[in-house]
Amino acid sequence: MYRYLDKIKCPNDVKKLNSHEILALSGEIREFLIDNVSKTGGHLASNLGVVEVTLSLFKVFNLEKDKIVWDVGHQSYVHKILTGRKDKFETLRKYGGISGFPKRCESKYDSFDTGHSSTSISAALGMARARDILKKDNHVIAVIGDGALTGGMAFEALNDVGYSKTNLIIILNDNQMSISDNVGGLSTYLSKVRLDPGYNRLKNEINNTLNQTTVGKNIATSISKIKDSIKQLVVPSMLFEDMGLKYLGPIDGHNIDEISDMLYKAKKSDGPVIIHTITQKGKGYNFAEENPNKFHSIAPFDSCSGELCPSNKRTYSNAFGESLIDIAKEIDEVVAVTAAMPDGTGLKKFAQEFPHRFFDVGIAEQHATTLAAGMAKEGLKPVFAVYSTFLQRAYDQVLHDVCVQNLPVVFAIDRAGIVGEDGETHQGVFDISYLSHIPNLNIVAPKCLEEVKPILRWALMQDEPVAIRYPRGGDIPGIELSPIEKVEKGKWDLMRKGKDIVIIATGKMVQHSEAAIKLLGEEYNVGLINATFIKPLDKKLLDDIAKDYKYVITVEDNVISGGLGSEILSYLNAIEYNGKIVNLGYEDKFIQHGDLSTLYKLNKLDITSIKDEIVNTLK
Amino acid sequence: MYRYLDKIKCPNDVKKLNSHEILALSGEIREFLIDNVSKTGGHLASNLGVVEVTLSLFKVFNLEKDKIVWDVGHQSYVHKILTGRKDKFETLRKYGGISGFPKRCESKYDSFDTGHSSTSISAALGMARARDILKKDNHVIAVIGDGALTGGMAFEALNDVGYSKTNLIIILNDNQMSISDNVGGLSTYLSKVRLDPGYNRLKNEINNTLNQTTVGKNIATSISKIKDSIKQLVVPSMLFEDMGLKYLGPIDGHNIDEISDMLYKAKKSDGPVIIHTITQKGKGYNFAEENPNKFHSIAPFDSCSGELCPSNKRTYSNAFGESLIDIAKEIDEVVAVTAAMPDGTGLKKFAQEFPHRFFDVGIAEQHATTLAAGMAKEGLKPVFAVYSTFLQRAYDQVLHDVCVQNLPVVFAIDRAGIVGEDGETHQGVFDISYLSHIPNLNIVAPKCLEEVKPILRWALMQDEPVAIRYPRGGDIPGIELSPIEKVEKGKWDLMRKGKDIVIIATGKMVQHSEAAIKLLGEEYNVGLINATFIKPLDKKLLDDIAKDYKYVITVEDNVISGGLGSEILSYLNAIEYNGKIVNLGYEDKFIQHGDLSTLYKLNKLDITSIKDEIVNTLK
Repeated sequence: MYRYLDKIKCPNDVKKLNSHEILALSGEIREFLIDNVSKTGGHLASNLGVVEVTLSLFKVFNLEKDKIVWDVGHQSYVHKILTGRKDKFETLRKYGGISGFPKRCESKYDSFDTGHSSTSISAALGMARARDILKKDNHVIAVIGDGALTGGMAFEALNDVGYSKTNLIIILNDNQMSISDNVGGLSTYLSKVRLDPGYNRLKNEINNTLNQTTVGKNIATSISKIKDSIKQLVVPSMLFEDMGLKYLGPIDGHNIDEISDMLYKAKKSDGPVIIHTITQKGKGYNFAEENPNKFHSIAPFDSCSGELCPSNKRTYSNAFGESLIDIAKEIDEVVAVTAAMPDGTGLKKFAQEFPHRFFDVGIAEQHATTLAAGMAKEGLKPVFAVYSTFLQRAYDQVLHDVCVQNLPVVFAIDRAGIVGEDGETHQGVFDISYLSHIPNLNIVAPKCLEEVKPILRWALMQDEPVAIRYPRGGDIPGIELSPIEKVEKGKWDLMRKGKDIVIIATGKMVQHSEAAIKLLGEEYNVGLINATFIKPLDKKLLDDIAKDYKYVITVEDNVISGGLGSEILSYLNAIEYNGKIVNLGYEDKFIQHGDLSTLYKLNKLDITSIKDEIVNTLK
Repeated sequence: MYRYLDKIKCPNDVKKLNSHEILALSGEIREFLIDNVSKTGGHLASNLGVVEVTLSLFKVFNLEKDKIVWDVGHQSYVHKILTGRKDKFETLRKYGGISGFPKRCESKYDSFDTGHSSTSISAALGMARARDILKKDNHVIAVIGDGALTGGMAFEALNDVGYSKTNLIIILNDNQMSISDNVGGLSTYLSKVRLDPGYNRLKNEINNTLNQTTVGKNIATSISKIKDSIKQLVVPSMLFEDMGLKYLGPIDGHNIDEISDMLYKAKKSDGPVIIHTITQKGKGYNFAEENPNKFHSIAPFDSCSGELCPSNKRTYSNAFGESLIDIAKEIDEVVAVTAAMPDGTGLKKFAQEFPHRFFDVGIAEQHATTLAAGMAKEGLKPVFAVYSTFLQRAYDQVLHDVCVQNLPVVFAIDRAGIVGEDGETHQGVFDISYLSHIPNLNIVAPKCLEEVKPILRWALMQDEPVAIRYPRGGDIPGIELSPIEKVEKGKWDLMRKGKDIVIIATGKMVQHSEAAIKLLGEEYNVGLINATFIKPLDKKLLDDIAKDYKYVITVEDNVISGGLGSEILSYLNAIEYNGKIVNLGYEDKFIQHGDLSTLYKLNKLDITSIKDEIVNTLK
C-alpha cells in the first residue's frame, strides 16, 4: 500500500500533489521499483535515475495531448507506473505482460515505441512537424541520455532540429554514462560542464560586468561582437547553441522544483530547447548507486543485500571473451572493438588485459564497423563484438566498407536468435537474412560453447570478413555434443547419418534438434548435420544429401525469409532435388517479449515441436 | 600535351615543382578535367573544387607511405590523375575502365574504397590506430566535405577521434553544399565562420588585450577561466575543439601556399587536427561555378557551351516527382523527405510547390526514416524518397522505427537495380533482400512509368509501411505495356497466359521479359506475370500457377539471395510444387561499374539472355 502512488490513476493526478507530496511520491516510486524489479528483473538503475525528471514532466505537461518520447525506453518504468500500469508490474517483461519498453499498444500515453538507442530526437521532431502542419498545439518532448547522444542519428536529428526552429523540447538526461562508462569527446565535454557548476554564475557575472564597466580600449570596438559571443564563454551552451538550439542548464535532475522551472521556461520558448539535467543512475538505492552497471539490466535479485542469485552458467559471451584473450596473447594484431557494450559482449577482461588493443567507441555501431575496416586494411585483426539487433545499425557499413573491399574484419555477433525478455526491438532473428546476401562475407555459428574458440581462431586467420553468430546464454544442460575437430571454410559436420530424413541445423538449433532426435527414440533413424557455415554452404555435402535423403528439414534461430533454410532450398532447387524440404524458423512477424522457452514453443522451435515436425514430415 | 602534368609519373613528382610551376599545373589539371569529363561524363564540380587541396597534400605528404582517405570519393579524380591514371581517363566509369571512386585494386595510392558518404573519418582513424599499434610512422589524412559531415557516422567518428587523441589529420573541404544546397544547424554554424573572416583576427586581438590590460574588477577573479575560454570566443574552433580536436582555419582552399602551411603545422601536431578549407565547387570553369548542382554528376556535355546533349527521356524520378505533386494537391497530409537529394530523387519541383511540406534533412538517411516514422505516427503521410543504395544506411530504422510499429511511411526507392557507371558501391541490387524479410512492410514495383502514379497513390492510402522500388532512367523504347487498372494489396497482374511455362518478373524486368518473349516469336507460348507486389506475394495466383505450369522462371533486378525469386521458391516449395523453378537475378558478387546494357548482358538479365534462358529451361 502506497499513500500517494496508489492515488495516481491518470497522469494528470500528479498535478494535484503539492511539493511535499510529490517528494513523498518519489520515495514511494523508488520503493516500488526496487521491490518489483528485484522480483521480475529488468532495467533498474536508469529508472531510479529519472524519477524526478518523470514527475516534473507529468507536473508541467498535459499527457492527454503532450507527447514524451523516451530514448531507448528502458527508463520508462516510472512513466508506466504513473500511466495506469502499476498493477501490472509483476508481469514486467513476461510473456503476455507489460513490456520493458514504451509500447503504443499498451497505453495511449506511450507516444512512440523505442528500444534501440538515439532515435528519440528524430521521432519527436517528426511528431512536432506533424503538429505544426496539422495545426495542433501539443508539446513534444524527447528524453535522451548522454550515452544515446553519441549515436550518429541523434546528431543527424540535432542538425535538423537546430536548422528548422521547430518547437521541441529535448531533455538531456546526463548520468555520465551510457550503459557502462561513457566515452568520447562529447563525454569529456559534458564532464567539463558538470564539474564546474560555476560556469553559470560566471556567465551572469560577466554579462553584468560588460554592461556596466568600460572595457580596455583595444577591444572596445569589438564589444558588440564580444557580447554576441559572451554566451559562448559558458561552455555548456556552445555545442548545442552552435547547432541552433537554446540551451538551459545544467540543473540538478533530482530537484523537481528546479526541473519544473526549466520545463515551464522551455514550454514558453520559441524554437528548439535542450535542457541539461544531471542525474545519478541508481539514485536512492545504495547498491545501484555504487554499481550502476550491475543494476543496468539485472536478473531478479535480493533487494536487501543487492545480491543476484548465484549463477555458474557459462555463457557464449564468456566463452567469446576468454577465447579472444587467449588468441590475442598469441597474435599481436588482434584488437577488439565494442559499441558501449564491454560487459554485455564479454570483453571486460580483454579490456583490462589489453587496454591498448581495446576500443570502446560509444553507441556507434556504424563507426565501429568502418573503424574496424580501416584497422583491417592496415594489417590489424579487429573483432567487433556486437549484439545481433544492434548490428542492424551497421548494415550499410558491413556491406559497403567491409565486404566490398573484402577486408578481414571479424564480427562477433552475440544475442543472435531470440533474446527473450527485451522483446521485439531486441530479438536477434534477422542477422542471417540481412547478412547472407552480402558478397564476400563468411557466416559461421558454433553449435556449442566448445566451438567458440576454434571458430574464432579460424576467423582470425582468414583474409576476408567473417561473422560469427551465437545466442544469448549458454548451452542446454544435458546435451553433450562433441565439438568439430577442424574448422574448414564451407564445411559442415555430419553428426548423425540417419536414413531417408536429415535435419540441417545451425548454432543452438543443433542442440534442439539433437534433443528432438533423442526424444523420438530408436524407431526413427534421423540424420543430423551441423551447418557450421551458414555461408558458404557445403555444396558438396548438399549434393550427397540430394542423393541420399528423401526429406530435408532445416532449423535455424532466424526468420525463414532470407535465412539459411531458404539458401539451402535455393541450392537444392538449382540441382533439381526431388525430395521434400521443410524450413523451420520464425514466421514473418515481430516476436514479443517473454522467456526463451515460451517463445521457442510458440514459434515451434522448441525440442518437442521439432520432434513433431519430424514425425509430420515423414507422414 | 601538358607541360607539367605530363611529367607527373608518381605522386612525389609534385614535390619537384616550384610554386609557379604548381600553379601552372593546377591550370592544366582543370583543363584536363573539363576536357575529359565533358566526353566521359562524371563528377566534375567537386573535382574542380579540390585541385589545390590535392596538390597541397601531394606536396606536403609522402604518398609512398602516407594515406589519404577521400570521403565519398567522387572528388578523387585529381588524385587519380596524379597517381598514374591520367592516360586511362578516357575509360572513366566505363566497363573495364577506371572507376569514378577510389579503388584499392586500381592503385596502391588509393588507400581505402569509398562511395557512400561520411565514412572517411572512421576508416582513417582505424588506419591511424593500426599504425600506432604496429609501430609505423605514416600520416593518415581524411578529406571530408561539409555535406558529408552531417552524416551521423562522421559525428560518431569525431566523438571517438577527439577522445582518443590519435594523430590524425582531417581536412574539412567546406564548399558550402553537399550535393545541392547544404542544410542543418551545422551548415548555419559553418556559414557564420565563413562569412566573418574577422573572427581569427579578433581571436588574436582579444588574446593580446587580455594579456596586457587590467580588466574590470568584478571579473578579475575569473581572469584565468576567461583565458581558458578565450579560444571559445572564436566561433570556428569551438565545436571541434569541444569534441577534443585541434582546429586550424578557416583558410582559402584554393591557395596552395596557405593550405601547405597548415598541412605542415598539422603534420607536426600531436593528436587529431581538423583543417577547415573553404573551396568553391566548380572552381575555374564558369559554367560549373554558376551551376555546381548541374555539374555535380553530369553526362557528357559540350565543354565550350556547358550544355548537355538534350534528352527528352522521361525518367522514373520525374514520374515520381510529378505524381507526388498531383497527389499532394489532393491530400493535405502528404509530405516529402529527402536526405540531401532533392534533384536526384525528382523532388525539386515539389519543394518549390510545397516548401512547408518538404524536408531536406542533409545526408542523414537514418534520421530521415525515423523522422518520417514520427510524422506518420501523428497523422501525416510522409514519403521518403531515397536511392536504393543509400537506404542501406537506414536498414535498422526501417525495421525498428517504422515496421515494428507498422507506421504508414512510404519509401520511394529510386535507383533500384543496377545503376551503371557509379559501380559497386552504388548498385541498388540489395533492397529486395534487405527489406523483404522485415515484417509488416509492403514492397511494390511499377512495371512501367505509367504505373508510378497509381502505385504511389495506393501506397499513400495504406495504414502500413510501403516501399516502392523503381530503376534509374526510364522505360525501354518500343515496348508498350498497359498499366494495371487497379492496385490491390498482394495482387499480381497476369499479362500473358501462355502454356507450360510462365515468367514472373518485377519492375523493369517485366519489360525485358516481355521483349524476350516477343523475340522468341509465335512458336513459343510463354506466360508472363508482373509481380507488382514483391511483398506480399500473390499466393492465390501462385496456387494456380502451381497447377497450370511445368516451368516457372522468376526475373528480378536484385541479387538472387533473399530476392523475390527466393520468396516465390519458398512458397512453391511449401505447397509442394513439382515443376521446375529457375531464379534469375544477380549472383553473389559485387557488380562493377559500366553502362547498363553491358552490365545486364554480363549478368544475363538482358533481353537475349532471358530469351535463351526460356529456351534452355524448356529443353
